Amino acid sequence: MPDLPPAGVLLRVLYLSLDPGVLSGSGEWASSAKLGGIGQVVAGENVSEVIASEHPAYAIGDIVLSSAGWRTHAASDGAGLRKLDPALAPLSTNLGVLGTPGFAAYSGITLIGKPKPGETVAVTAASGPVGSLAGQLAKMSGARAVGIASGLEGCRYVEADLGFDAAVDDHMPDLAETLARACSDGIDVYFENDGDPIWHAVLPLLNRFARVPLCRLSAGCRRVAGDADRQMEILQEVLNKSLTLRGFVGTEFSDAHYPQFLRTVSGGIADGRIRYREDITDGLENAPKAFIEMLAGRTFGIALVRVAS
Amino acid sequence: MPDLPPAGVLLRVLYLSLDPGVLSGSGEWASSAKLGGIGQVVAGENVSEVIASEHPAYAIGDIVLSSAGWRTHAASDGAGLRKLDPALAPLSTNLGVLGTPGFAAYSGITLIGKPKPGETVAVTAASGPVGSLAGQLAKMSGARAVGIASGLEGCRYVEADLGFDAAVDDHMPDLAETLARACSDGIDVYFENDGDPIWHAVLPLLNRFARVPLCRLSAGCRRVAGDADRQMEILQEVLNKSLTLRGFVGTEFSDAHYPQFLRTVSGGIADGRIRYREDITDGLENAPKAFIEMLAGRTFGIALVRVAS
Repeated sequence: MPDLPPAGVLLRVLYLSLDPGVLSGSGEWASSAKLGGIGQVVAGENVSEVIASEHPAYAIGDIVLSSAGWRTHAASDGAGLRKLDPALAPLSTNLGVLGTPGFAAYSGITLIGKPKPGETVAVTAASGPVGSLAGQLAKMSGARAVGIASGLEGCRYVEADLGFDAAVDDHMPDLAETLARACSDGIDVYFENDGDPIWHAVLPLLNRFARVPLCRLSAGCRRVAGDADRQMEILQEVLNKSLTLRGFVGTEFSDAHYPQFLRTVSGGIADGRIRYREDITDGLENAPKAFIEMLAGRTFGIALVRVAS
Repeated sequence: MPDLPPAGVLLRVLYLSLDPGVLSGSGEWASSAKLGGIGQVVAGENVSEVIASEHPAYAIGDIVLSSAGWRTHAASDGAGLRKLDPALAPLSTNLGVLGTPGFAAYSGITLIGKPKPGETVAVTAASGPVGSLAGQLAKMSGARAVGIASGLEGCRYVEADLGFDAAVDDHMPDLAETLARACSDGIDVYFENDGDPIWHAVLPLLNRFARVPLCRLSAGCRRVAGDADRQMEILQEVLNKSLTLRGFVGTEFSDAHYPQFLRTVSGGIADGRIRYREDITDGLENAPKAFIEMLAGRTFGIALVRVAS
């Protein structure tokens, strides 16, 4: 148990989010240390309760978003904490649909992709925490949403539960043909949230002026097979079709856009237009097993650990 | 000599612009036929004089921008013509700094790149018709301009005549080191106007939130050597640094922005802040030779043919 720092707070972790980005140092953890050696704390976001405070902005009982990682208690000087509104939605949503993954989806779709009614939005990793909201936000803006997911169960979830217009299985050999059929009017916004090498299927479908928000590239994407240098193929398409490729992390938009994001998504949760799925494991001691399950693709929805209740 | 079409105009070509894009069908000619067979007219922009008219918008003696290609006279129904103001600047500038190449530079720098004072703008093909204006517009917005050009003469022209802060020779083996020294604060806007494979030198220098307007990729860029697939290398940089890659052709912006472009650039020509260079060859019969000289890199500045005076 750490000591209460001067003018700081002591946190009791309630929920921990399991983020594959800690393995690669990508995405939100781009500037963080990667999963380190013995004695280092694995990075991760938490919903925590303030259990002691000398900080003027935080009182005992406040619920905050913290980045204390895989631990039960943490000391903080207050930097990087965000006070949460427990009335808005269940606490755990602050790590998923109403938290960093949700805001990544909101940034990519609402702030960068800006789909217009009738346009087609394709989303990779569509059954995951980011992609699932990205497609639903696209639908709310009047666009068609096509989800790219892995396996029958994932595709069913995307279509039947989340209400995407179509789902395409990226593990099928006929991906390119299936995606072309699902996007018969081409793709106007391609939300890249995975990075498995499906660009060969996506590039020919992108319409003129298409927007490509780049949210995440999975570790696997850097080991793409193939003997051709396709660098110039992408650049040529960007030029020929006046495409916009825009990499981003949600944090760059958060100051200006977080309040509207919270209003939009909590409203969507309340009236049933936004659905989400959580895979909650009880007990910090079970976090490694849950992390492995997530990496193996045996969970979908956001993978959380309930550290305390 | 063609006949005057009903409700059309008959044009006498005064100047013809030699554009390497006709060879690859890229850039402004992306949707045009490539350099075709016997009997086809090679594409190209002209400054022409209306010598007969049944068109309500054009009178005999009007000077217009046309796309009649390599010919002395042409008939037109008026579609695609743009009336020019001979008082604004010398007529020939309407094919260069005050025409399509100039507007490409303006679109990429002023509308997409939007350099801020103190930022660094790197421009490829900096001694050419597009790049030369791109760098000067960057300077006018208070940014540092670094030109990438070929050969000692080109680099001297960029630095001494055009007033770029530095010029780097892309034919030198130490390009990456030289460019890094010239861009000691990194690159905030990379105006891609060439496409020779210098991305290996540029990518590491791009700052967070850098903008990359893609104006042209030369034919050579598609035959880039190397056995590694660098597709994901670019995407990873786009993601890690929140870069924006934006392909464009000037025509997509022209309706809204052409008047301001004409004011900005003609003003810059008048007060000496904008310089330009024309390589003018006399006589349409000398166009093939001039075209070859241009492709061989023995001219810089815009390559024009004075077809009639």
